[in-house]
Order: sequence, then C-alpha cells, then structure tokens
Amino acid sequence: MPIEYGESFFKWRESSAETWATFTTHKFVVGLGNGMLAEAAFLRYLRQDYIFLLHFARAWALAVVKSDNLDEMRMSANLVNALLNDEMRLHVKICQEKGITREELENTTELPQNMAYTRYVLEAGFSGDFLDLMAALAPCVMGYGEIGARLKVERTSDVYSDWINTYSSQDYQNLCIDLGKVIDSAIIRRLGRNFYESERWDKLITHFQQATTLESSFWDMGLKG
Amino acid sequence: MPIEYGESFFKWRESSAETWATFTTHKFVVGLGNGMLAEAAFLRYLRQDYIFLLHFARAWALAVVKSDNLDEMRMSANLVNALLNDEMRLHVKICQEKGITREELENTTELPQNMAYTRYVLEAGFSGDFLDLMAALAPCVMGYGEIGARLKVERTSDVYSDWINTYSSQDYQNLCIDLGKVIDSAIIRRLGRNFYESERWDKLITHFQQATTLESSFWDMGLKG
Amino acid sequence: MPIEYGESFFKWRESSAETWATFTTHKFVVGLGNGMLAEAAFLRYLRQDYIFLLHFARAWALAVVKSDNLDEMRMSANLVNALLNDEMRLHVKICQEKGITREELENTTELPQNMAYTRYVLEAGFSGDFLDLMAALAPCVMGYGEIGARLKVERTSDVYSDWINTYSSQDYQNLCIDLGKVIDSAIIRRLGRNFYESERWDKLITHFQQATTLESSFWDMGLKG
Amino acid sequence: MPIEYGESFFKWRESSAETWATFTTHKFVVGLGNGMLAEAAFLRYLRQDYIFLLHFARAWALAVVKSDNLDEMRMSANLVNALLNDEMRLHVKICQEKGITREELENTTELPQNMAYTRYVLEAGFSGDFLDLMAALAPCVMGYGEIGARLKVERTSDVYSDWINTYSSQDYQNLCIDLGKVIDSAIIRRLGRNFYESERWDKLITHFQQATTLESSFWDMGLKG
Repeated sequence: MPIEYGESFFKWRESSAETWATFTTHKFVVGLGNGMLAEAAFLRYLRQDYIFLLHFARAWALAVVKSDNLDEMRMSANLVNALLNDEMRLHVKICQEKGITREELENTTELPQNMAYTRYVLEAGFSGDFLDLMAALAPCVMGYGEIGARLKVERTSDVYSDWINTYSSQDYQNLCIDLGKVIDSAIIRRLGRNFYESERWDKLITHFQQATTLESSFWDMGLKG
Repeated sequence: MPIEYGESFFKWRESSAETWATFTTHKFVVGLGNGMLAEAAFLRYLRQDYIFLLHFARAWALAVVKSDNLDEMRMSANLVNALLNDEMRLHVKICQEKGITREELENTTELPQNMAYTRYVLEAGFSGDFLDLMAALAPCVMGYGEIGARLKVERTSDVYSDWINTYSSQDYQNLCIDLGKVIDSAIIRRLGRNFYESERWDKLITHFQQATTLESSFWDMGLKG
Repeated sequence: MPIEYGESFFKWRESSAETWATFTTHKFVVGLGNGMLAEAAFLRYLRQDYIFLLHFARAWALAVVKSDNLDEMRMSANLVNALLNDEMRLHVKICQEKGITREELENTTELPQNMAYTRYVLEAGFSGDFLDLMAALAPCVMGYGEIGARLKVERTSDVYSDWINTYSSQDYQNLCIDLGKVIDSAIIRRLGRNFYESERWDKLITHFQQATTLESSFWDMGLKG
Repeated sequence: MPIEYGESFFKWRESSAETWATFTTHKFVVGLGNGMLAEAAFLRYLRQDYIFLLHFARAWALAVVKSDNLDEMRMSANLVNALLNDEMRLHVKICQEKGITREELENTTELPQNMAYTRYVLEAGFSGDFLDLMAALAPCVMGYGEIGARLKVERTSDVYSDWINTYSSQDYQNLCIDLGKVIDSAIIRRLGRNFYESERWDKLITHFQQATTLESSFWDMGLKG
C-alpha cells in the first residue's frame, strides 16, 4: 500500500476489506473522479457534510476529554480546530459559489443517514474509552485521505478538483500520518505491543467496520437524497 | 383522549400529530390488531426488539445517572429492572415457542434502523440532561401504551394477543401514568410551570419527534427486514 | 484470607496493602467494633453516607450504561436497587430512631470529602470504561464486606451491631462474592487471562488506590466533622 | 464594578459575595500582589496548576461536545487551545527557570484539593448540560481575570509580575469579556430573558459557589502543601 497511516489502521482496514472497498470505491467516489457525479448530488452531500462536521468536531472534542496524555489531547484538539475552522469554511465557500447562502447551509435538515453515523460515533465514545472512539473516527479521516490520494492520480476530470485537492493535499496526508502514529501509540499503551491478540481488538474492529458501513450509507444519501 | 399519560406527553404528542399518527397507526400495528402481520415479520421485529431493549435499559440507567432527586432515580431504576427482567424474558419466551433459541436470539445482528434509534436516544442523554433523555424515551414507552390500549378494544384477531395483552395490561398502563407524572414534575422543576413557553421546550419537541420517526422506521424494518 | 471476593480484588488489595490497611483498620472502624465511637460522629457519618449512597447509586447506574453484556448489566442494576431501596431505607430508619427526620436527612449539606469521593468515581466512569468504574467502585463495596465480616468476629460491643450485622450478613457477603465474579469475568473478557500483565492494569490499580484513600478521608470526616 | 464579564457572571458573583471574596482576596492572592508569597508555595501551586490545566482543558473540550451552536463550540475550542498551548507552556517556562524540569513537572503527584476541583467540574458537565458546565468553569476563568486586573493596579512588588501580567493582559481580559457574552447568550437561549427567575438558576448558582469554594481550597493547598 503506497499510503502509510499506521499499523492499527492497516490491520483494521485489512480485516474489513470488503466493507472498506464498498466505501472507498463507491459510485459517488467514482463520480468525483470522472466528473460524472451530478452537481445536485454533490451539493446535497456537501450540505449534509456541513452538519456532519459539526458533530464530528464534537466527537473529536470528546476524544480530548477521553485522552490519557498531552499527545492524544493535542492531536484531538488540532482536529477540532481543523474541522471548525478550515474544513467548515471550505464548505461555506463552495456552497456560496453555488448560490447556497450560509444561512441556508446552517438550516439544512439533517438526514437519517447523517444522524445515524454521527450518533453512532458519539455514543461509542461516551460509552467506551479513547480507543473505541478512535476506531469509530478513523474510517472517515483516513478514508478521505486514501480516496483523495488515489483520485489525485486516477481522476479524469477537473469538475471536483477542489474536493480532491483538499484531501490529497500534503497537509491532509500529514494529518492522516500523524493521526496514525497517535492511534498506534494509544493502542500499544493500553493493549500492549501484541494488541491484535488482545480481547478488546475484536470490539475495535467492529467499531471500525460499523463506521465504514455508515460512510457508505452517507455516499448513498448523496446520490439518492 | 381516554388515556392520560401526563401534560408534557400530551403537548409533545399534539405538536407532533402527523409523525405520531404515522407511528401509532403504522401498517405493522394494523397487522398486530387484525392478525394479518406475517409471523416472519413479527419474529424479525421481536429479535431486533430484544437488542433494542438492552440499549433501552442502558438509556434508562443513564436517566438514573442524570436524575436530580430520588423520585426520578427510582422511576428510572424501576424501568431498568422491568426491561432487563420482565420484558426481555417475555421475548425469550415467545421466541423459544417459535423455535428460536436463546442463543440465536442473543446473537441476532443489529440492523441499521435499530442502531440508529438506540444510539440517537443514548447520545441525546449523554450530550444533554435528564429532560433531553425523557423527551427521547417517551415515544417508545408511551406509544406502546397507547397502541396496546387501542388494540385491546379494536383488535379483530387473537394471533398477537400476547403482545397486545402485555402493553394493554393495567401494570403497563400504570407504568405509563406514573412515568407521565415523573416527567411532568421533572419538567416543571427545571423549566417552570409555563414550561411550554420556555426556550428549551422546542428542543424537547425535536427529540420527541425524532424518536417517534425512528419508531416508525423500526416498524418498517420489521416489515421489510 | 478467609474472605473470597475474586482474583482481581485480591490483586488490587495486595498492591495497595498499606492504603487498604489505613482504610479498613481506621480509628472509626475500631470505634464501631468496640463501641467507643461517639454517637455524634456516627450520625454525622450516616447523614453524609445517605448522600453518598445517592451518588453511588448513580455510579452503579453508569455501570449499567457501560456494560458489555447482560451479566454485567444485571449485577450493576441489582446494586442500584439495593442502594436505592434497602440501604437508603436503613439509613432513614436509624436516623429516625435517633431523632433525625427524613427531611433533615435529605437536606444534609454535602461535605467536601463526600463530594471529592463521589465525583472522583463518577468522573472515572464517564471518562473511562466499565473497568475503570469497577476499580473505583470496588473499595467501598468490598471494603465494607471485609470490615463487616471481621467486626462480626472481633467486636467487643453491641452499640453498632445494626451496622455490623448489615455488612456481615450472608446477603451482603454474597453480593461481594457475586460482584467479584462479575469483575473477574469483565476484566478477563477485556484484558485477557493474564490481565495483571496488561498495560491497563496499572491504571486500574491507581483507581482502586485513589478510591481507597478517599474512603479513609470519609472516615476522617465522620470523626472530625 | 470596573470589569464587565457579562450579566450572568455578575449575578452569580453577587449571589456568592462572601465565597467570592474569600477566593479573590485569599492570603495567597495578597502574597502575589505584595511579593510576600514564599517561592516554595508558588511553585507548589504552579506544579499543581499544570495538572489542573490538563483537566481544565478536558472540561472545556467537554463544553464543545455539549454546545448547541457554532459560537459556543468555537469559544470552547479556543479555550482548549489556549490552555493546551499558551498557558501550559507558560508553566513549563517558569518552572524551568526555577530548576524544575518538564519531566518533573509532568510527574507531579496530583493533590486531593486539585483532584476534588477538577473532578467536580467534569462530573457537573457529564451529568448536566452546557450551562452546568459553564457555571462550574466560570469562577476559575473570570476569577483569575478579576484578580489579575486588580493586582495590576494594587501590586506593591514585582516578584510575581509574570503571573499578574498574564492575567491582566488585554488578551486575557478580552477572553473573559468574550466568554461572558457567550455564557449570557447560552443562558438566554436556554432559560429565556428572565433567566434569573427560572427554576434552573438556583442549581447554576450552586455550581458557581461550589467551584469558587474549590478555588479557595486550591490556594490553601498552595500555602500548606
């Protein structure tokens, strides 16, 4: 694999191969790459994603609360800021260019697939510990990194280059690499060097797979509304 | 209205009239009353409901944590016990009669609609306070009470009389009445006598409506799998 | 050791030997056994303990929320009920016999040592998982069991026999034994058979020791007000 | 009052006048102003405060989780960053100048008064909502602002000018003013314009007073160890 987001992510991804492929090679993703994705679908996705980012920032803030040390806290706090400031502003900007005002964007009605995903992640964090939260958060952060990096090479259209450039940027790739290191340390610290033999590992895989499935439903929602 | 589950419930229900009707007169409910509901659909629902009850018991336990006084604590703790002991045993019993072993029941895969509902309720409770949790929990408890009481009178078949008798029983009706009193007190204590004019009331209505919508999806899941 | 509350408890206790001795052979405890504890000190303790039990019941309810299976849920829910119903009623009864009305009891001002203890346990549970909560809850439940069993044999006075009989009763001892089994299973399920070699074990010891220290402060509070 | 940190803070402060005076004119504070505070006491305080800031950052992250809108989220996220980055680095710097290495600082044993305070605030947030958290967080943020502003004028010594300059700086004062606005909006949004007549107001005052008392204990800890 050309992309290296850490050992835990690699193992999670490997144990969820089919689910992961469904998410990362979804028709929506293909459409981003070849430009065939309908603008209405993209905007529907983007408006939902804006609400998603709000709750995703809340989930990363919960990771700060559940951290055991400064490295975990700082990584998680940086993600809260990246989401609340950079990423949400990007959505506001793209939407405005397409004639959707900030007010319209903020008043978007949250669709069921969106709600199902964000509440799943937050509840996993509230009921579990830092690792449960990481396993549920990783598919989104790293999946976008992997999709971005692949589409940068494979794309045949410039229609969605803003989106592709964002997630294939060195900044975003570095974020995935750094996050991978923090997750690996967090897991080794709590479950030991042979973490994949520990009893808790299966539960973390379940969170990873579930969140990956909910990512696919999110693409579905974009396509079907 | 012949049934009296308290003032807050009455107001919530009134402000969600259409959503409430969709839930309480759903095709699944009609089928319970006239016996036309396919057994496979009923068992699919029952197996999912078993998992639902586990998480619902966790949500009522969270209500104990979020309580402000002994009345709220005792009411919520009683519901945890009723769910963990009486109601789950009923599901085990009915399933066994239909040839589904306890082990099969416990290994049922949680479907997306089930997950979406339970995580929504738990997250509302974790992120909010006792009232947010009550508004999200009320539709299930009281909706089943209302449906049970109505089907007891209107039913034209005995096929699902076990289910109907459970929720129309005086015990269950009393539980709804008692819960209604605790919720009314809890709301007045926190929001004042004119609670429906308070700023928070709208947010509570939103939780009630959302949970009611998720109840309808739960019936859909029973019908469609 | 004549008392058997499980392997995890045995190891926690062993690794906190001095702290544990300070708690279980505290001057307050000695006074319960030889009857030399001033009634005012006992009543001050009892009134604080009433408030403590409220928050302790909330903490056990949080354990229901954080449970992974029905055994953990049922054990924790039973403790919520035992606390809310049996144990709190005992406090009400003893206080009434001493001329403290239920209303006075319920209006007792929570002292700092009480607050420090209960908030520590609840926060450990909210920020951590089921095991963090168990490690913080065990010292109180099992310490009282151990003290009760010892005083039953060693006591030289009947002044505080109500208290001693409660915690040396077969019912209470069985509760400790059952809880020990649930904790052992919960730990093995999450950390493996060699749990004491796992990375998380040290953190659990820290919770156990901290809660034990806070138990000693609670006795201090009884003596000094 | 020359300082204006918002209406809610003003009312909280007013209803806790004596407790507030004990905190803000504590012997420790007097010693910061006239330079008579022993260096050992100041360093003991500073080392505990470093650990305090870790948990305080977790509490502000919990405020992000419990926010209802972007303004609340951004304010809370900014505080997380200010604590994790600026304020903690200041402690590292001062300690290093006094010969306490970063490693020694990070390995400081948390004292009971410190633990009691941080766990109280976090638990108030987990069990309650955004407002409960704000009422428990306000005394520290705004108390330091008020003390800093007063000592800037009244101080008769330069010994602790670093500390005084930090909290009397325009940056810090602006942070208090901005926070005051966010809290006022948050309260009005949830409790209405006449919030001080609402049922919940008393509970918020209790959190404010309790946290203020725990601030005084924190100064005591600095003096007595």
